[in-house]
Amino acid sequence: MERGARHFQDELEVLSSRLLEMGGLAEERVRRSVHGLAERDLDEIESVLVGDEPINRLHIEIDDRCFRLLALHQPMAADLRAILAAVKINTDLERVGDLAVNIAEATQRYRRHPPVKKLIDIPRMAEIAQAMLRDALDAFVRRDIGLAERVLNADDQLDTLKTQVFRELLTFMLQDPTTIEPALDLILVSRHLERIGDHATNVAEDVIFMVSARDVRHPAATADPLSGA
Amino acid sequence: MERGARHFQDELEVLSSRLLEMGGLAEERVRRSVHGLAERDLDEIESVLVGDEPINRLHIEIDDRCFRLLALHQPMAADLRAILAAVKINTDLERVGDLAVNIAEATQRYRRHPPVKKLIDIPRMAEIAQAMLRDALDAFVRRDIGLAERVLNADDQLDTLKTQVFRELLTFMLQDPTTIEPALDLILVSRHLERIGDHATNVAEDVIFMVSARDVRHPAATADPLSGA
Repeated sequence: MERGARHFQDELEVLSSRLLEMGGLAEERVRRSVHGLAERDLDEIESVLVGDEPINRLHIEIDDRCFRLLALHQPMAADLRAILAAVKINTDLERVGDLAVNIAEATQRYRRHPPVKKLIDIPRMAEIAQAMLRDALDAFVRRDIGLAERVLNADDQLDTLKTQVFRELLTFMLQDPTTIEPALDLILVSRHLERIGDHATNVAEDVIFMVSARDVRHPAATADPLSGA
Repeated sequence: MERGARHFQDELEVLSSRLLEMGGLAEERVRRSVHGLAERDLDEIESVLVGDEPINRLHIEIDDRCFRLLALHQPMAADLRAILAAVKINTDLERVGDLAVNIAEATQRYRRHPPVKKLIDIPRMAEIAQAMLRDALDAFVRRDIGLAERVLNADDQLDTLKTQVFRELLTFMLQDPTTIEPALDLILVSRHLERIGDHATNVAEDVIFMVSARDVRHPAATADPLSGA
């Protein structure tokens, strides 16, 4: 392998490891925000509210790395697709970090009221969303289409749980108006978790495109398939 | 100007016009979904629910164009930033289209109940979000940083209105439990509109970065500035 190409592959490895690092941080923030909600743990919530600096820094660094790789190495085909995937995945992971903050903010409001109920489905949703995120990033690093496709399928579970959470909380709200305000925040949290699953889905779709040059985002919309230029 | 460069600039123009077209479609879908909600117009809602094909097609086409421009022309500095901005803006516009569908779905549920109130703030939020989207895309086409910065400022208005909508609807819900279900959908719509504003903000930030190579996304996080490689 000639020297420029070797350097490029090394740089791609660093890029992947930074994305994994960012994914780990984002996942940890989701875990903490929902654990803080379920356990009413103020310290955990605080740590999510003040701790977005490392993710924001990685967000900028990864964008910077992608830009430099494109500018200096002018990659083609699969390498170009990998960098474009990294640009998009970077955006998705940053949003996941923001959603953890949204969950922490909802928790701050939720804590002002007595608990509506023992939380079971919401922590379950968080576990699924975190696993989706982890698997999607694993699929990116290992170029594993099968794993990426399993992430797409997991999204249905989140959707079912979100509907279940909504129906249950609606019953509480209708029976007892004092639960309206806190139940609203739980509904919002379930939506935030659903969106985290959506971001994991985006990552998985980017992986499938990166590996196979197959666009699975809009099955009905037919455009010229990207054959890798 | 040599022939390859001329061709590249022509291609960039086409890319811009496609993004404008997509932005126009997304904005129109937001307008329709909220108009359908405020006027209880089922036809308008239907048209949003079934009409995402053109945006999805543009989403794929624009990604394809960006990929080909990068692969065939290997642009540097400002041109490279413009294409990376287009990749990101494309994603944001597609999400705006999805959010219009979410608003239409909430409207379908809302229509099963008597109206909670005459809607004033939500149509106002929609107007602001649409204007932000339009201005952000204008700023992209005209490379206008001042306009992009005004988009960032408009976001506060949306936030204020969202809080106002929430407080007002909460009062209704507490006074009359029959309004709980429909009011919940209005709250969700206001969140969807807030997110449309967030996407317009993302576009504006991408424009500022594209024109000035200045990253305004995380003021606190300091990383190496991208000087255009």
